[in-house]
Amino acid sequence: MAAAHRLSGVFAPVLTPFKPDLSVDRPAFRDFCRWLLGEGVGLAIFGTNSEANSLAFAERIELLDYLVDGGLPGGALMPGTGSCALPESVALSKAAVKAGAAAVLMLPPFFFKNADEDGLFAYYAETIERVGSNRLRVCLYHIPKFTGVPITLGLIERLIKRYPGTVVGLKDSSGDFANTLAVLKAFPGFNVFFASESKLLENMRNGGAGCISACANVNPAAIRRLFDGWQGPQATALQAALDPIRTIFETRPMIPALKRAAAEYGGHPGFATVRPPLTPLGDAAARDLLAALAANGFAMPGLSNTLQAA
Amino acid sequence: MAAAHRLSGVFAPVLTPFKPDLSVDRPAFRDFCRWLLGEGVGLAIFGTNSEANSLAFAERIELLDYLVDGGLPGGALMPGTGSCALPESVALSKAAVKAGAAAVLMLPPFFFKNADEDGLFAYYAETIERVGSNRLRVCLYHIPKFTGVPITLGLIERLIKRYPGTVVGLKDSSGDFANTLAVLKAFPGFNVFFASESKLLENMRNGGAGCISACANVNPAAIRRLFDGWQGPQATALQAALDPIRTIFETRPMIPALKRAAAEYGGHPGFATVRPPLTPLGDAAARDLLAALAANGFAMPGLSNTLQAA
Repeated sequence: MAAAHRLSGVFAPVLTPFKPDLSVDRPAFRDFCRWLLGEGVGLAIFGTNSEANSLAFAERIELLDYLVDGGLPGGALMPGTGSCALPESVALSKAAVKAGAAAVLMLPPFFFKNADEDGLFAYYAETIERVGSNRLRVCLYHIPKFTGVPITLGLIERLIKRYPGTVVGLKDSSGDFANTLAVLKAFPGFNVFFASESKLLENMRNGGAGCISACANVNPAAIRRLFDGWQGPQATALQAALDPIRTIFETRPMIPALKRAAAEYGGHPGFATVRPPLTPLGDAAARDLLAALAANGFAMPGLSNTLQAA
Repeated sequence: MAAAHRLSGVFAPVLTPFKPDLSVDRPAFRDFCRWLLGEGVGLAIFGTNSEANSLAFAERIELLDYLVDGGLPGGALMPGTGSCALPESVALSKAAVKAGAAAVLMLPPFFFKNADEDGLFAYYAETIERVGSNRLRVCLYHIPKFTGVPITLGLIERLIKRYPGTVVGLKDSSGDFANTLAVLKAFPGFNVFFASESKLLENMRNGGAGCISACANVNPAAIRRLFDGWQGPQATALQAALDPIRTIFETRPMIPALKRAAAEYGGHPGFATVRPPLTPLGDAAARDLLAALAANGFAMPGLSNTLQAA
């Protein structure tokens, strides 16, 4: 039951910058995407760390168009398209296919916590049928701590069986690497991304496809180096080098901290803005974050030139 | 800290009928709303039992317009408008105010489970400020089993203090009547709806405002009789009479069972359709449901005439 399509690499769930009025700062978003691409990572726009669910459906459609119109290569994109509402999942996925996206990252509908496997299968199947394109590639998104709706092995099996070549991967944000290993073991060739670079080497050694990680927004090149070199002599050292930066962000409110770092290192103060219900880092927490980053020699090389040019 | 605005009664979180292609069956929805109004209950359209989060934002806007254009009185409406995305909450709430709705029922943003009180306050405050109407009335919606994001006493206190006369009530779907009592005690005059008619009498006796209950879709007149007669000599008997019907639905997948009952008693088979991730009752379960209802003398008087006339 091997997936026919290879999807792999390091993807950033791209942070979404906002203006002071909380509207999307599209030029900054496009330029940040360009910077990430230049650092070697793919663009999982509209992910959890993108505050995707804090964006209106219309904003997501428009932002995808804006990126493509701005010359971003569609093949670098893995947009999040899963929504509680079937018509919106369908429309977003169609737009992603039209943009030439490598895949879509699809949350389950996450309001009804008691949805059963039949219902979740029906949701994904109905979405796939309605998109109706052999160019559609679906990466399932397992993030039970936020959805309350797990993507089980049984559901994956049914979807791969019914839609081989379409349902091609999973992002595992459970934080439980044992689950990742179980999926890898059950479905050889299925493209499994762990949601943190902390297990990137281990994931690759077990047949995984890479990672889709929050920290790929701020530390992309180093994570990409490990992806490129995981079979080489420096692999263990490259993995170890990622941990201090990861720890700095992981021990803080992650999205506000990532955005504050991008604001500072990008010379774009507005980048720190978040939409409610998230709250920005306070002044003291921000100073503490920046001190910790400086002490670790953190940098986002070239970002300030990219964003300043906007 | 009494709320300035009295909001009370029995409201149905109105079931949303779908056509075979899963699009909204607008005429059936409008006619079902009319039937409910005739039975004496208000219309909490776009609630949990309405599968509101399975509806696209655009569908909700259009459906609200359709009802008002069809002559339904705006003042009978309490539309659900809370969304994960601030711009959608604002637009839906504005549309509700324009329709003359009695209030809006507002979920917290429910994707980020780790949202803190400051973030949730900011979300509601930003929504209220952006709607910018002194006709807006907000009923907070506490349903932690589905949102994972509780509406705490502390949050209610801050919102009432900042927006008296706007934040006027709470729907408590926690299932924990002790929480309802705590809210009633902390905020005299605040309009507290319990989410089941099973505690309607007790809620009224403790200063509550009524109920917004799934079963008000199928058993509206009897629930309304208790609301009208809660201070009279028959109150206990009226409360007791509600329980057998409640139990029949509560012990089954509730939304599919409610829709199946409306389909059967309304002579409108399509009413049973649900959107994924919900799944309809199977044939055996449907037969069992209908037998239980028949054995309890259940009826939805006049519904078949209303829906047939469409």
